[in-house]
Amino acid sequence: MAVTLSRADVEKIVRRVLSNELSTGTDDSRGRLPDVPRSNYAELVVSISARHCHLTDEHVEILFGPGATLTPHKPLYQDGFYAAEETVMIVGPRRRMLPNVRVLGPTRDHSQVELALTDAISLGIDAPVRLSGKIQGTPGCVIVGPRGVVELDEGVIRAARHVHMDHRQAQQFQVQNGDLIGLRIESPGCSLVLEDLIVRADATSKLEVHIDTDEGNACNLERATRVELVFPHRDCECKK
Amino acid sequence: MAVTLSRADVEKIVRRVLSNELSTGTDDSRGRLPDVPRSNYAELVVSISARHCHLTDEHVEILFGPGATLTPHKPLYQDGFYAAEETVMIVGPRRRMLPNVRVLGPTRDHSQVELALTDAISLGIDAPVRLSGKIQGTPGCVIVGPRGVVELDEGVIRAARHVHMDHRQAQQFQVQNGDLIGLRIESPGCSLVLEDLIVRADATSKLEVHIDTDEGNACNLERATRVELVFPHRDCECKK
Repeated sequence: MAVTLSRADVEKIVRRVLSNELSTGTDDSRGRLPDVPRSNYAELVVSISARHCHLTDEHVEILFGPGATLTPHKPLYQDGFYAAEETVMIVGPRRRMLPNVRVLGPTRDHSQVELALTDAISLGIDAPVRLSGKIQGTPGCVIVGPRGVVELDEGVIRAARHVHMDHRQAQQFQVQNGDLIGLRIESPGCSLVLEDLIVRADATSKLEVHIDTDEGNACNLERATRVELVFPHRDCECKK
Repeated sequence: MAVTLSRADVEKIVRRVLSNELSTGTDDSRGRLPDVPRSNYAELVVSISARHCHLTDEHVEILFGPGATLTPHKPLYQDGFYAAEETVMIVGPRRRMLPNVRVLGPTRDHSQVELALTDAISLGIDAPVRLSGKIQGTPGCVIVGPRGVVELDEGVIRAARHVHMDHRQAQQFQVQNGDLIGLRIESPGCSLVLEDLIVRADATSKLEVHIDTDEGNACNLERATRVELVFPHRDCECKK
């Protein structure tokens, strides 16, 4: 194919290329994932949080009997946290229920039920995406235990996908607590990139991504061949 | 900023721009999503396929009685296809079951059950990702209808995410039947990019993406603010 270019065309093209090559992108279309290097981090753990709940000491006693406390069943990856032996039934507004929902320990200041959207739909609850603990204005539900019942006015959420890390790792990744990054999961026939992954950086956490069962099943995480954190806006003009 | 270019630099740059603008993409670095323009297409429809099954004429008669045929209940977006009034129970190897699985019509040459991974796990069936119709070597299940039972030796799949289009649209998007593209879904707090979206181009299909309930719920498709097809390899350096 023959292409004839005027001097003006050449200048226009050169200007465009230089502007592509010398600029570092802008962030005007949020969520766009530019062509950044994507690294695998040896220590990166991706965990699926199946539906579960957190309880207050008071609710543990109501549900499991006076004086009851949680019994650790299996430690979680983050130090000090565990799946308890105790399970409860979660009942939604249309009297649909999930019969065996695991309680996670230790106890907290507020009880909270974390569901995947598929779970929430099956219960008939419109659970919003929230960070753990941010339950103001969220829907409630009924929690049924072997010894009693608790009616929550609020506390049913779909946990926002997030990544725990310590401050040293946050520095290494050049991110701050609250930043949104991404997670790419390569899996035969069903790879995906999860955006809106919230950075939770503190002094002691181990590097671990938490996603829910819908997210984990959409990419068949168990069969995944590669997981990688992606940093969409690392090289953005806006950071300079 | 001052930039000095040799004549060779200019030629190189012009060549690269032309090759970007005139080339049409290859698929040699599967799954990586570089910084390409992402367009919204006015006519793009994204549909969630909830678990369902396709039946042969023979199986319809076994399940619903001699002489039975499917009764259209609701037309699907693609012309000629419909959700039938008929539903069946799907039973897995551990006698777990899904009680109300919709039958889609018209009938086919082979019966096939399409589940999300969440459904398959609940049934205890290891359903592989397959294009509809590619059921060789897949697991079976038991289908129970009001008048009879069918035991499928194979046919339980997790449908591969795909996008239907006609040949004109395939040409417009510069893709071919079987190509893998992506779908980005922007949704508050849970945006994602689904890779491995298979192009199904034929003479008559309307532009429509089919994803399953896990994929749709992972991004809360119902609340999504933007959907866009993404063409990951269109502008790759590697194609030159």
